[in-house]
Amino acid sequence: MSKEPGRLVIIGGAEDKEDRCEILQEVVRMAGGSHARVVVMTVATEVPLEVGAKYLEVFHRLGVADVRTFDVSSRENANARSAVKAIEEATCVFFTGGDQIRITELLGGTEVDALLHKRFEEGMLLAGTSAGASMMSSTMIVEGEPETNPRIGIVEMAPGMEFIHGVVIDQHFAQRGRLGRLLSAVAQYPHHLGLGIDENTAVVVENQTFRVIGSGAVTVVDAGALTYSNVRGLRENDDLALCGVTLHILPNGYKFHLRDRVPIIEKAERNSSKSEGTRS
Amino acid sequence: MSKEPGRLVIIGGAEDKEDRCEILQEVVRMAGGSHARVVVMTVATEVPLEVGAKYLEVFHRLGVADVRTFDVSSRENANARSAVKAIEEATCVFFTGGDQIRITELLGGTEVDALLHKRFEEGMLLAGTSAGASMMSSTMIVEGEPETNPRIGIVEMAPGMEFIHGVVIDQHFAQRGRLGRLLSAVAQYPHHLGLGIDENTAVVVENQTFRVIGSGAVTVVDAGALTYSNVRGLRENDDLALCGVTLHILPNGYKFHLRDRVPIIEKAERNSSKSEGTRS
Repeated sequence: MSKEPGRLVIIGGAEDKEDRCEILQEVVRMAGGSHARVVVMTVATEVPLEVGAKYLEVFHRLGVADVRTFDVSSRENANARSAVKAIEEATCVFFTGGDQIRITELLGGTEVDALLHKRFEEGMLLAGTSAGASMMSSTMIVEGEPETNPRIGIVEMAPGMEFIHGVVIDQHFAQRGRLGRLLSAVAQYPHHLGLGIDENTAVVVENQTFRVIGSGAVTVVDAGALTYSNVRGLRENDDLALCGVTLHILPNGYKFHLRDRVPIIEKAERNSSKSEGTRS
Repeated sequence: MSKEPGRLVIIGGAEDKEDRCEILQEVVRMAGGSHARVVVMTVATEVPLEVGAKYLEVFHRLGVADVRTFDVSSRENANARSAVKAIEEATCVFFTGGDQIRITELLGGTEVDALLHKRFEEGMLLAGTSAGASMMSSTMIVEGEPETNPRIGIVEMAPGMEFIHGVVIDQHFAQRGRLGRLLSAVAQYPHHLGLGIDENTAVVVENQTFRVIGSGAVTVVDAGALTYSNVRGLRENDDLALCGVTLHILPNGYKFHLRDRVPIIEKAERNSSKSEGTRS
């Protein structure tokens, strides 16, 4: 098992489960390949049997023999002995989609919550998709209105599960027109970087950096350098004005330094970009 | 009539025609109020009778007695004597929605095209919504895929009618998830500012500046300060990587200087923002 703490795979929802399964393959690889022991947490969904069965099938197909699902429908059964044991032995815990508030309400402060943090710090891989992505951060988007301009009232925030700090995560990003709600979130909390993760796209976090995998892109919204904002004193439905937000669009293979808030451009990419400069 | 050339009202589509009609009211005011003479150009749409009748009704309701519609279904009738005369006398020409390529194909290079530019430079107000907004610039978005991450191939560009330079306009912006396609456009042509105009929202251009009116916001996408882009040498469906794009979100009442590429924050707004600074 890796000694390096804090490995996360945060997926923007609708990851491929039939074809190349690029993202889930990477989850399996990081979890130990055929030696992986995966626990699929279906706590976010109201149809845990269906969702759990699908992931069981996919992880088996990807060569993982030891996969089990763990559903939590009440805080009482969040501490089931068998589940605790499975997490103690897991190399990866995978959170499915559903409703992120179910995750924090049903797991928050339980024995499993503490154990997840302990195991995560010891190097266990944590992965999550859609709702399972949103809950990863300290502050999470609970819900919000899509396809509209930024206003305070279009986004509801709440404390998340705190596996990663300094970011707010949104998923199904391009597909559901969520720029407005992510901007509304970071306008209120410019300390947080907004990570808008497209469907079938993921950020893989290790050592204060992330890299992007999958077929879409990650939109990093940085309100740290705002030159003007009218956010203070605004009421719910007033329109936000924001000047000087910085945006980075990072597709597959690109990297970002979370603490320094800058993309990491590898030499090869710089050179290929420069070598084109001779075109006239 | 104003001696100031270059007055445009560029509307992001779906402007209110039933309730307060804030945007169309402003068009009427700028066109001379009850003395306005408005020509509604239905060239973009394939249902000109229906669309024309609607605007006739609205402009009459807003107090304009002299409104006429002008349809162009072939390049031949683009130069109809009666139409030319109407434009010669108009205080405002209003372009409806439809397909922007119809506007450039049917009007481009005709007598009416030349006359529109002449009258526009003399101070006649030009307004357009949706397709009638897109065609205003020198380079226009013809069509593009919504709700996806930026790629070269998702946006098709073509020369527009050249009433405004240095911008690329997109409409129905937040409502149709068009950040990706506007980024794809400005990544290729970073000289152009991207203006993403929401529905029932407009930019009013005068003297190299614009102000925003309506219920949504204008998203200004400035790729001028890009710190990295992989756009050169990319093929159609390759994913774009863009670092350091600047974004401004400007709702009703906010202003922007087009040549200097900066928002204009009025004193009152600055002060109200500062006066909140004492909260502890």
